[in-house]
Amino acid sequence: MQRYFVGEDGWTEQGVTITGEDVHHIVRVMRMQPDDEIICINPSGYAASCRITSTDKDAVQCDIIDWLDEQVELPVEVTIVQSLGKGDKLETVVQKGTELGASQFIPYQAERSVVKWDKKKVDKKISRLEKIAKEASEQCQRTIIPSIHSVHQLDELIQTGKQFKWKLFAFENEAKQDEYQSLADLVNKMSADDRVIAVIGPEGGFSQSEAAKLTEAGFHPVRLGPRILRMETAPLYLLASISYHLEELR
Amino acid sequence: MQRYFVGEDGWTEQGVTITGEDVHHIVRVMRMQPDDEIICINPSGYAASCRITSTDKDAVQCDIIDWLDEQVELPVEVTIVQSLGKGDKLETVVQKGTELGASQFIPYQAERSVVKWDKKKVDKKISRLEKIAKEASEQCQRTIIPSIHSVHQLDELIQTGKQFKWKLFAFENEAKQDEYQSLADLVNKMSADDRVIAVIGPEGGFSQSEAAKLTEAGFHPVRLGPRILRMETAPLYLLASISYHLEELR
Repeated sequence: MQRYFVGEDGWTEQGVTITGEDVHHIVRVMRMQPDDEIICINPSGYAASCRITSTDKDAVQCDIIDWLDEQVELPVEVTIVQSLGKGDKLETVVQKGTELGASQFIPYQAERSVVKWDKKKVDKKISRLEKIAKEASEQCQRTIIPSIHSVHQLDELIQTGKQFKWKLFAFENEAKQDEYQSLADLVNKMSADDRVIAVIGPEGGFSQSEAAKLTEAGFHPVRLGPRILRMETAPLYLLASISYHLEELR
Repeated sequence: MQRYFVGEDGWTEQGVTITGEDVHHIVRVMRMQPDDEIICINPSGYAASCRITSTDKDAVQCDIIDWLDEQVELPVEVTIVQSLGKGDKLETVVQKGTELGASQFIPYQAERSVVKWDKKKVDKKISRLEKIAKEASEQCQRTIIPSIHSVHQLDELIQTGKQFKWKLFAFENEAKQDEYQSLADLVNKMSADDRVIAVIGPEGGFSQSEAAKLTEAGFHPVRLGPRILRMETAPLYLLASISYHLEELR
């Protein structure tokens, strides 16, 4: 069934009022009419199956038929910090990472990022990523839309990291040492609703000083399997592993 | 550097003793002498860089300089059967799937594949996928290049499946039943060198009759997490999960 995210304003005890771009989608694209059913999701991520009662060009009115008991969100909240990279890599990460359950994305200006975002275009780039996250959420039937943050530098990232219980970064060199904590050790200790932040390096990898600062700030270096992954594949491996361990294995 | 496979008997704490035909190769063919370096691989697939200390007509003695971190192949051999899809999806799957350790790819003409490959262009498409697999293998430093097979129809796929110990297909509907075997149950039972074949459906999913025939042929329906994945994301989830379980968790 077609799914729509509806903001706080749209919900009353009587039902749901959909406004904005989704009206066009419901009325013109899907050609829905009164009595057709859709799923509406509120800002807390709860989904309700709804019946359309009326449509006009500005609004679609619905009755709530039933609240759905949908467990499609990862049991832990994962924030992917993705180094800026060439081409559409960040878009790929946001689209596929959303399918795989990420909660937030933070673009990161790594020391060796070969790309810098032009300040004039940052807002447009963030909006584009937000649109990709929304579409991917709807497509894969998630109940939240992952948020996209502003571009972080290292200092800001370390500050942000303080809010998270589990802090990781994908750093194969360090993870080759004997004393490292494996990804599986860390995932195994995670409990429901824990917050996880994972930093993925750029094409050229983290610099030594960057890795040292992350380690000092409590980020654990982890290995994502023994093969060298591209920067856009690494977060997908991480998210799939967390999902597999917490949703399929446990 | 020249590489030699050395049997169990050849390894001691002090170093490596090479006997048999390789002695001729090292001494006569390569004309190596003390202080020259070679790579020796033990029966478990681990490689060590070694320095020759002495040679005679029956044996070559070496010191181990360093163990190389070369265990980069998945412990099981995974064949991804990917339904034909729109755009460059198959290319994405071959590139990322190679990074994630797949051994073979079989393009599959699923009942609901919206794309059919023009017979005249099949060879060119396969060559292109082979090139992508080779480049991805080199990039991620694998020791094999995954092979790309011809496009299979259902009957051929079922025949091919007979060579595999573990047969899976990603089929959420069936996997929602109570009695299904979870992906984790199956991966947990896999042993080194087992052969795994996994079929990924097209955008529209498997047809009921296709799913029934696969099940009848011994393919297990599996769920890849509770979110609905795009056809090109599903094999990446599967490969990452197998890697995570067998390479990071065990």
